Amino acid sequence: MPKIVDHDERRLELVDATWRIIARLGIEGATMREIATEAGFANGALKPYFPTKDTLLTFAFGHVFNRTNERIAEVTAGKTGLAALRAFALEVLPLDEERVHEARIVIPFWQKAITDAEKAAIHRDSMEQWHGAILEHLTQARKNGDVSSAVGDGAIAGSLLNMLLGAQIAAALAPQGQVDHGLSDQLEGFLALLQAGP
Amino acid sequence: MPKIVDHDERRLELVDATWRIIARLGIEGATMREIATEAGFANGALKPYFPTKDTLLTFAFGHVFNRTNERIAEVTAGKTGLAALRAFALEVLPLDEERVHEARIVIPFWQKAITDAEKAAIHRDSMEQWHGAILEHLTQARKNGDVSSAVGDGAIAGSLLNMLLGAQIAAALAPQGQVDHGLSDQLEGFLALLQAGP
Repeated sequence: MPKIVDHDERRLELVDATWRIIARLGIEGATMREIATEAGFANGALKPYFPTKDTLLTFAFGHVFNRTNERIAEVTAGKTGLAALRAFALEVLPLDEERVHEARIVIPFWQKAITDAEKAAIHRDSMEQWHGAILEHLTQARKNGDVSSAVGDGAIAGSLLNMLLGAQIAAALAPQGQVDHGLSDQLEGFLALLQAGP
Repeated sequence: MPKIVDHDERRLELVDATWRIIARLGIEGATMREIATEAGFANGALKPYFPTKDTLLTFAFGHVFNRTNERIAEVTAGKTGLAALRAFALEVLPLDEERVHEARIVIPFWQKAITDAEKAAIHRDSMEQWHGAILEHLTQARKNGDVSSAVGDGAIAGSLLNMLLGAQIAAALAPQGQVDHGLSDQLEGFLALLQAGP
C-alpha cells in the first residue's frame, strides 16, 4: 500500500521548523537546507511544498494570521462590544511564549514586505480585516453605552491596531524569557480611556 | 598637501547609501558591494568605516534615532505638557517621505535584533529614553490640569510608544507614495482621550 502523505500536515511541519530556525538563526540564517534538516526532510524534499524561502515565509505569515483568527473566534464567541474588543486585543497581544514566537515570524515578513509589493498587500489586507473587526466591536460598545467618546471610531481603531503591532516588536526584542512587559496594563488603560467620557 | 578626509562625513554618506539600497533591494539585497557602489566608494574602501554590514546597520539605526531626537528637541523647544507630547509624537510618526525612509531602516534593524542581543538592547535603551520623555510630558500635563485620567502614566506612555512603533510598520508597508494614513488623526484622537476625563 502506498504511503499516504498529508501535504497540508507536512506544510505545517515546515512552518514550525521555519520559525524554530528563524528564532535561532534569524531570517538570513534560515536557509532552505537548515529548515529541511530541522523538519527532518531530505534537502530536495522541500521544493514540492515551497519552491523558495519566500513562498515559505508568506505561507508562515498566513498561517500565523489564520491561527490567531481562530483563537480570536474562540475567545470572542458570545461576547460583544467592549468585552469582545478586550478579548480580541488580548489575543493579538504577544502575552505568552507561543505568541512571542509568532511575532518573530511576523517581523521578518514585514521586513521582506518593505520591498515586496505582494507581501505588503497581504499585510494590509490582514490589517483591514482586523480594523473592520475592531470597528464592529466599537459600534456595539457605543450601542451598549460603554463608549461615548467624541473621538471617531476610525481613529480609535487605527491607534489600537498600531498599538497591537508595536507590541509585537516590544515583545520580540524583550530579554529572553520575559513576557507581558505591561502590555495587558496598556490595553486596560486604553479601554479605560475609551470609557472615560465624551 | 594630503587630502583631508572627514570620516564622520563619509560614514553618513554610507548610511545614506545604505538606506537608498535597502529601500530598493531590501536588506538581503543590500550587500557591502552594492552599498559601496551606491556611495561612490571602491569596494574595499568600506572596511575601515564598517567592517561588516551589521556594524553599518547598527550605526544607521543610531543615526536615525539621533536625528529624530534632534528634530524632537527642535519641535518641543519652549513647549511643555500636552503641547510637548503632541510635538514629540508628531515628530516620531512617519508623516513624510524622509521618515518613511527611516522606518525602512528601522524595521530591518528590528528584524536583526530578534537574534542579536546587542541590537535588541540598543532598541530597548532607545525606547526607554522615549518612555522617559513621554512620562515627563505627562507629569507636566497633569500639573497643567490638561490630563486627569485615572489611567497610570506608565500605561499611557507604553501604549503611546507602541502606537508610534506600529505606525512605522503601517507607513513602511503602505502603497508607494502614500503618507499619513490617518496617523495624525489617530494621535489627535489619543490625546483627546487623555483629556476626556478621570
